[in-house]
Amino acid sequence: MTTASPKDFTFSENSLGLVTPQTLVVNEPLTLVCGATLPSYQLVYETYGTLNRDASNAVLICHALSGDHHAAGYHSTSDAAGWWDHYIGPNKAIDTNRFFVVGVNNIGSCRGSTGPASINPETNQAYGPDFPMVTCRDWVVTQAKLADTLGIDQWAAVVGGSLGGMQVQQWAIDLPDRLRHAVIIASAPKLSAQNIAFNEVARQAIMKDPDFHGGRFLAHNTLPKQGLMLARMLGHLTYLSDDLMGTKFGRELRTGSLKYNYEVEFQVESYLRYQGEKFATKMNFDANSYLLMTKALDYFDPAREHDDDLVAALSHIKAESLVVSFTSDWRFSPARSLEITRALVQAGKRVTYTEVESEHGHDAFLLPNSYYEQLFGAYMNRIAREFSA
Amino acid sequence: MTTASPKDFTFSENSLGLVTPQTLVVNEPLTLVCGATLPSYQLVYETYGTLNRDASNAVLICHALSGDHHAAGYHSTSDAAGWWDHYIGPNKAIDTNRFFVVGVNNIGSCRGSTGPASINPETNQAYGPDFPMVTCRDWVVTQAKLADTLGIDQWAAVVGGSLGGMQVQQWAIDLPDRLRHAVIIASAPKLSAQNIAFNEVARQAIMKDPDFHGGRFLAHNTLPKQGLMLARMLGHLTYLSDDLMGTKFGRELRTGSLKYNYEVEFQVESYLRYQGEKFATKMNFDANSYLLMTKALDYFDPAREHDDDLVAALSHIKAESLVVSFTSDWRFSPARSLEITRALVQAGKRVTYTEVESEHGHDAFLLPNSYYEQLFGAYMNRIAREFSA
Repeated sequence: MTTASPKDFTFSENSLGLVTPQTLVVNEPLTLVCGATLPSYQLVYETYGTLNRDASNAVLICHALSGDHHAAGYHSTSDAAGWWDHYIGPNKAIDTNRFFVVGVNNIGSCRGSTGPASINPETNQAYGPDFPMVTCRDWVVTQAKLADTLGIDQWAAVVGGSLGGMQVQQWAIDLPDRLRHAVIIASAPKLSAQNIAFNEVARQAIMKDPDFHGGRFLAHNTLPKQGLMLARMLGHLTYLSDDLMGTKFGRELRTGSLKYNYEVEFQVESYLRYQGEKFATKMNFDANSYLLMTKALDYFDPAREHDDDLVAALSHIKAESLVVSFTSDWRFSPARSLEITRALVQAGKRVTYTEVESEHGHDAFLLPNSYYEQLFGAYMNRIAREFSA
Repeated sequence: MTTASPKDFTFSENSLGLVTPQTLVVNEPLTLVCGATLPSYQLVYETYGTLNRDASNAVLICHALSGDHHAAGYHSTSDAAGWWDHYIGPNKAIDTNRFFVVGVNNIGSCRGSTGPASINPETNQAYGPDFPMVTCRDWVVTQAKLADTLGIDQWAAVVGGSLGGMQVQQWAIDLPDRLRHAVIIASAPKLSAQNIAFNEVARQAIMKDPDFHGGRFLAHNTLPKQGLMLARMLGHLTYLSDDLMGTKFGRELRTGSLKYNYEVEFQVESYLRYQGEKFATKMNFDANSYLLMTKALDYFDPAREHDDDLVAALSHIKAESLVVSFTSDWRFSPARSLEITRALVQAGKRVTYTEVESEHGHDAFLLPNSYYEQLFGAYMNRIAREFSA
């Protein structure tokens, strides 16, 4: 339980208040799907709420591309809340009065868990571009190691959106006895060619940046900022819906009249440049990690080893599933969530599907939305009744 | 009439065969919408077919972002055909046995008409980034100058797809007496915020390329190849439909098994890298021109000067219109063509609208498609009957 009360700051009644990350060091080698072996690794994680006596109330939160372990609460009174704070906390959809919630940063990422910026104990140098490819399957292995350490044999639920939802699917497939519910939000059973293409443009933007130095930018005391900026601008373009961009920015001019030059002319340009620059300069996201995360997205395809038969891939899962999509999400459209749902139904599994009306595109899974909140809360309540009964 | 017969090569029966570009030099200043003045300019153009006695059979073809005057026929027996050769030629949709067809390269572009790579007579240096912003309205002015020179008071039709379709709209609005038909294909009454956002990412990719040198790359003996490559990869992503990418590439691997590295893993990555590199290295497209063309797209918005009332903007046009969209085009979706159509109907104009079933996305307007060919041909035949009657 890492929740603490702030001294001279008042959090809202439903806030977790201050939370503190913890670290699990695993001093044993981990062989990854790609064939490479990490001699050891560490996981940074946070927990909210209290694990009950029979460890039946634990919920794992899996993060998306640029997410991390800090899903809820505050690290300080001056910081922003965790990325899913709206849905995790006392009396929230994932109610920390009832659930013991675990957020974990994945290996390969750059928020404290072992990744490209970490020191390779075999060379005493940062891994950089030598950090091996990681996949959802590898993340499930490491997350299961964390569960072992915390004394959690079986999660009440594993929950995630986008790339996080792919980890949820992988959990249900690989370790069917270790979760009772799979909550798969704004996700897909695999990327489409167009999804891969967007990732590839983002990767090329980073890798072709002269400051990338083949991934050894830190050794050159530089960062591939332009590449990261472009990658993030492109990301934002695919996270937002066309409609929302229209509502939010339309063709509004920054200065009221046309300037006929390459400075910011329309508000939407200003927004995208700001988001790209913020990500590249202030958010300190490691470029090698960004590349790895996009590749993990590309590689996820559980049906592949079953001759592209998703029903076969899902045939051994035991979890009951909640699948949620958002009407304006064109990155992982409702049709992609329905592919998962239909395959689960065909495989004879219990599954609830719902489509949430939203104009926020792919980002919707992170944002306040009353119907989403209500259905998410109702489903989690049902899970809570199972173990409190 | 620039059509000529090849000596030792046989073109198909319906081909224009060899065609030769011509140049119009306009030695008078041109003041542009942006306020800047070009002291003089030249237009490179091609003509196919023969202008009839009363000059009533002339058709102007307006090109899109990376297009040019070479719309049909061949420049040599070893070159590819012009970009719309499938639809322009003897007995084709735009039948050169009946129509006198004019293709023209726009100023600001880089295929022979005055643009950033041209010498500014006032400085004896290439314009480079100092070339002023050009708009569809400016292009119409220059194209009208060409019409004057060719003795064409009124086009039988002005025809164009995408950015070309915007020029068609501008013709109908600005010079209503000078065209009888407006053929507006795969276009929009203005870009959406999302469209502008895609252009902005492409521009940032070019302008942030260290080889761009603020647009003076030629003086540095270099080219912003990476930026152009990224811009074109992104372009291709928006020209193709998600479905087509799925059909064409799916998640097929380049080498049969996963490699877990940053080389090409999936076929779609290979395709995009190839298209991007080809554009940046072999097609010799000027980066400053690319920027100008994207800005011309952004600026097109005829309703703007009528308080965003498109009906008012179209109220003075006299041309009859054909508006064509393609089902899988998500860059300029059928909904955008319907905006034009509805405004024309509301303004009391004659307009024919049709939506062509195609999986080829925005690219569809350039590609063979039997229904498209038939309706396009039928409409052009109707125009031909008007002047031959």
